[in-house]
Amino acid sequence: MAHHLLEGKKGIIFGALDEKSIAWKTAQKCVAEGAEIVLTNAPIALRMGAINQLAEECNAPVIPADVTSPEDIQNLFDKSLEHFGGKFDFILHSIGMSLNVRKGKHYTEANYDFMHKTLDISAISLHRVLQAALQKDALNEWGSVVALSYIAAQRVFPDYNEMADAKSLLESIARSFGYHLGKQKKVRVNTISQSPTITTAGSGIKGFDGFYNYADKMSPLGNASSDECADYCVTLFSDYTRMVTMQNLFHDGGFSFTGMNEEIIRSLSNGE
Amino acid sequence: MAHHLLEGKKGIIFGALDEKSIAWKTAQKCVAEGAEIVLTNAPIALRMGAINQLAEECNAPVIPADVTSPEDIQNLFDKSLEHFGGKFDFILHSIGMSLNVRKGKHYTEANYDFMHKTLDISAISLHRVLQAALQKDALNEWGSVVALSYIAAQRVFPDYNEMADAKSLLESIARSFGYHLGKQKKVRVNTISQSPTITTAGSGIKGFDGFYNYADKMSPLGNASSDECADYCVTLFSDYTRMVTMQNLFHDGGFSFTGMNEEIIRSLSNGE
Amino acid sequence: MAHHLLEGKKGIIFGALDEKSIAWKTAQKCVAEGAEIVLTNAPIALRMGAINQLAEECNAPVIPADVTSPEDIQNLFDKSLEHFGGKFDFILHSIGMSLNVRKGKHYTEANYDFMHKTLDISAISLHRVLQAALQKDALNEWGSVVALSYIAAQRVFPDYNEMADAKSLLESIARSFGYHLGKQKKVRVNTISQSPTITTAGSGIKGFDGFYNYADKMSPLGNASSDECADYCVTLFSDYTRMVTMQNLFHDGGFSFTGMNEEIIRSLSNGE
Amino acid sequence: MAHHLLEGKKGIIFGALDEKSIAWKTAQKCVAEGAEIVLTNAPIALRMGAINQLAEECNAPVIPADVTSPEDIQNLFDKSLEHFGGKFDFILHSIGMSLNVRKGKHYTEANYDFMHKTLDISAISLHRVLQAALQKDALNEWGSVVALSYIAAQRVFPDYNEMADAKSLLESIARSFGYHLGKQKKVRVNTISQSPTITTAGSGIKGFDGFYNYADKMSPLGNASSDECADYCVTLFSDYTRMVTMQNLFHDGGFSFTGMNEEIIRSLSNGE
Repeated sequence: MAHHLLEGKKGIIFGALDEKSIAWKTAQKCVAEGAEIVLTNAPIALRMGAINQLAEECNAPVIPADVTSPEDIQNLFDKSLEHFGGKFDFILHSIGMSLNVRKGKHYTEANYDFMHKTLDISAISLHRVLQAALQKDALNEWGSVVALSYIAAQRVFPDYNEMADAKSLLESIARSFGYHLGKQKKVRVNTISQSPTITTAGSGIKGFDGFYNYADKMSPLGNASSDECADYCVTLFSDYTRMVTMQNLFHDGGFSFTGMNEEIIRSLSNGE
Repeated sequence: MAHHLLEGKKGIIFGALDEKSIAWKTAQKCVAEGAEIVLTNAPIALRMGAINQLAEECNAPVIPADVTSPEDIQNLFDKSLEHFGGKFDFILHSIGMSLNVRKGKHYTEANYDFMHKTLDISAISLHRVLQAALQKDALNEWGSVVALSYIAAQRVFPDYNEMADAKSLLESIARSFGYHLGKQKKVRVNTISQSPTITTAGSGIKGFDGFYNYADKMSPLGNASSDECADYCVTLFSDYTRMVTMQNLFHDGGFSFTGMNEEIIRSLSNGE
Repeated sequence: MAHHLLEGKKGIIFGALDEKSIAWKTAQKCVAEGAEIVLTNAPIALRMGAINQLAEECNAPVIPADVTSPEDIQNLFDKSLEHFGGKFDFILHSIGMSLNVRKGKHYTEANYDFMHKTLDISAISLHRVLQAALQKDALNEWGSVVALSYIAAQRVFPDYNEMADAKSLLESIARSFGYHLGKQKKVRVNTISQSPTITTAGSGIKGFDGFYNYADKMSPLGNASSDECADYCVTLFSDYTRMVTMQNLFHDGGFSFTGMNEEIIRSLSNGE
Repeated sequence: MAHHLLEGKKGIIFGALDEKSIAWKTAQKCVAEGAEIVLTNAPIALRMGAINQLAEECNAPVIPADVTSPEDIQNLFDKSLEHFGGKFDFILHSIGMSLNVRKGKHYTEANYDFMHKTLDISAISLHRVLQAALQKDALNEWGSVVALSYIAAQRVFPDYNEMADAKSLLESIARSFGYHLGKQKKVRVNTISQSPTITTAGSGIKGFDGFYNYADKMSPLGNASSDECADYCVTLFSDYTRMVTMQNLFHDGGFSFTGMNEEIIRSLSNGE
């Protein structure tokens, strides 16, 4: 499936780590739909990942940027503007990392230096990116920014730990900055709240498999895959969705509005 | 526990069927807190129920009213105004009935005459009550109306069937009419979205027990009981909550904002 | 703009009245994107409208159907299945009418027979359509149903009157039936909550112009037009959004998440 | 009005600055309802404020604590446990401060060190307080924690700047930690989303007066006062609301669910 939906459009993709990443799939789909892209990730992630393979496939430069560093982001925008020969149209923010999770700290025992770093990397990074976009006037009118979120921003999923708070903050920043970018630049900003996805990042979370299966059962259409998420991103970067902004859009097979599932109830009753 | 919270207040309680009913408990608590009340229910429910026992205990008249009949509601208000010797302060709407559920119709096979009756009894009845209150100028300033709802208005619980739609409509009517009663009469209108409760009405629903246990496990504080719901109603009728209006208030031990529960995931994994 | 997004897809469009209608624009866009369509509307609307012109332009049959009549809907589905030579892929429900508004009744003075008719036409009609779709197994896997809604389902806009309640009910039905269609048929059901739109239907509402301008000012991107709404419908009918279901999607230039606007505050302050 | 609602209960009140503060009023009401309290605030705020007057009136010790310092919070809990002679029952968190606002930075030009401090003081402070409560096992079963929030956590109010993001984070922390405190200790945690209030803190915000008046007009019951907010806090600390947890509760005269106001539309139309 490819319909030249992004013909003539240009954008930056943050967070493609390996071929399981949503960002990786989105990069591929954007290019298949006619876009030109720049790939970026943290220097350390670039070393671990296989991004050069993707860069070659997409004919895209890789510009390293630590999203906690304003200078790196400035540099990324300067180089991207240079590479594209002018303004561009879309940004995917697919970045998240929890230090307390990595260190095995329970939510109630969070270390606050770690928490600040988690918020900085996973949420405030979006503010930095949008601030740079605005200051450098880097985005064309009717440009589109998408950041990936998760329903833990609305409801408690205990194992998701402090990332829940990071995603709440991320969604708030998307909304707050989206207001200003909308008024000043006619640029839209949204978050996609995606099903749990079997990515290298996702699978690190304790109890991920049990939860993945639970969400899959609960969702009338099953969990949304990273491929499907990439398709959805394409629509949000396209000109078909110009008036959608400041929204958190659930892409989850119906999970978010399903309160219970008969089979789960049944298997609980049998288990007792 | 009783603190004279409703000293000098007067109100109408709809829907006390038997001692398991939330309305029954609320009637008792209101009286214990110093209120005078009028009890009402549909003529048929009055015949089935034990309401005279409650009426005696609460020293309250029972005025039958079919909530689908404007005349009955007019009569109820006239008689209540007469009984109280003037305006009154609060109303509890605890009314719901699904004909399609009773007739065993699956949601997708709903009969539309039944559906209209369900909506009429369970939701539009609130509009009728509020219309009568406004037309007869029956409520004192800072009066308070509470209607009981359920989270199926927000998320799908398949066995709850068309009552989900009725509760959505009920919450909308509370909000819409609440705006006008607020502006014109300084009266507030809210809905309480209550845990599944073991009432005679609740237990009629297919799969109720399985669901009750599921909700109890999912809620960090467990399911809220009808006694606790009655306490919460008292606060909403009291002068401590004068500026709360047009809200749907979850009273559910945390169920509404809990996305998953580790024990449920675990017992699902073990079952496989 | 047209990208063959709906190549090979077939669908029914309800509610195209004249060239200002969202349904009219959506019909045109669907055909431009490669879809085959059937047009339908109430017999009385067909007589008033200019639908034959659209039908010719779209090479589409017009099959009259009163959405309050199960027989009419059955007939519409039978004829559509016949016309398409099999199952089809999408449905647009763009139907709404308030009798109390027409009759000039204030919300607090609603006539209940009128209210039932309003709910029947504007909301329960969606249930009837989905019931027919399920019973006749009319939709292909990964089919998509969209119904048009309005933010009055969430917040009170006094002039919108009982249509607020109708839209709440509509969104609940979309969610409830969406669960079952998702599980049984892999079909998705969503509502779009659209900006106020200058349509023949919209402009009938008292105070519409004042409100249209207010919403336009409040929305960082301005009000979404009917053309833009049609584009958005196309994405929801396409294969790019397969995992979006049971959602209410705001298409409103950011109105829904904007709490206030500096210019409005300023002009209020100046006026005083 | 006082009904011994908090007879025998003990709690800590954060954030009483002067007699306009919500925390000040809440302290007074809690004592009037029979509670014993400890007052606390940042050392610098204690020097500026008139808290000794309140302390005397309430017969309460003042224990300084900088909420960004874990040691200070530990010390506060230790001293409070000692003062009360054991566990206590409630906590009010009424703390917020935005460095970017103070420094006159527009939201889009935020300084990130300032932003981290804003989040630390205004939101992460709640996590610190709850962590200390849990680690020291300081709260009785059915204890209650309330933090004050604002609707900018849900919708954009441009002048509210980064405090919007801080309040989103605060609400998320209340929910996340509320889950664990609920399960482990049967303690509830909620936020109150209060009307704009004429406090010393509130009035510092640019354009506050214009906004205060706008909110007052939009709210069917007008803005909620700090006195009324204190009353509402009392209900949430009392035993009448034991099953309400992980909620954000609007206390705003109906503002949150009002979409527009006829008079505002009219005055906008006249102004043009």
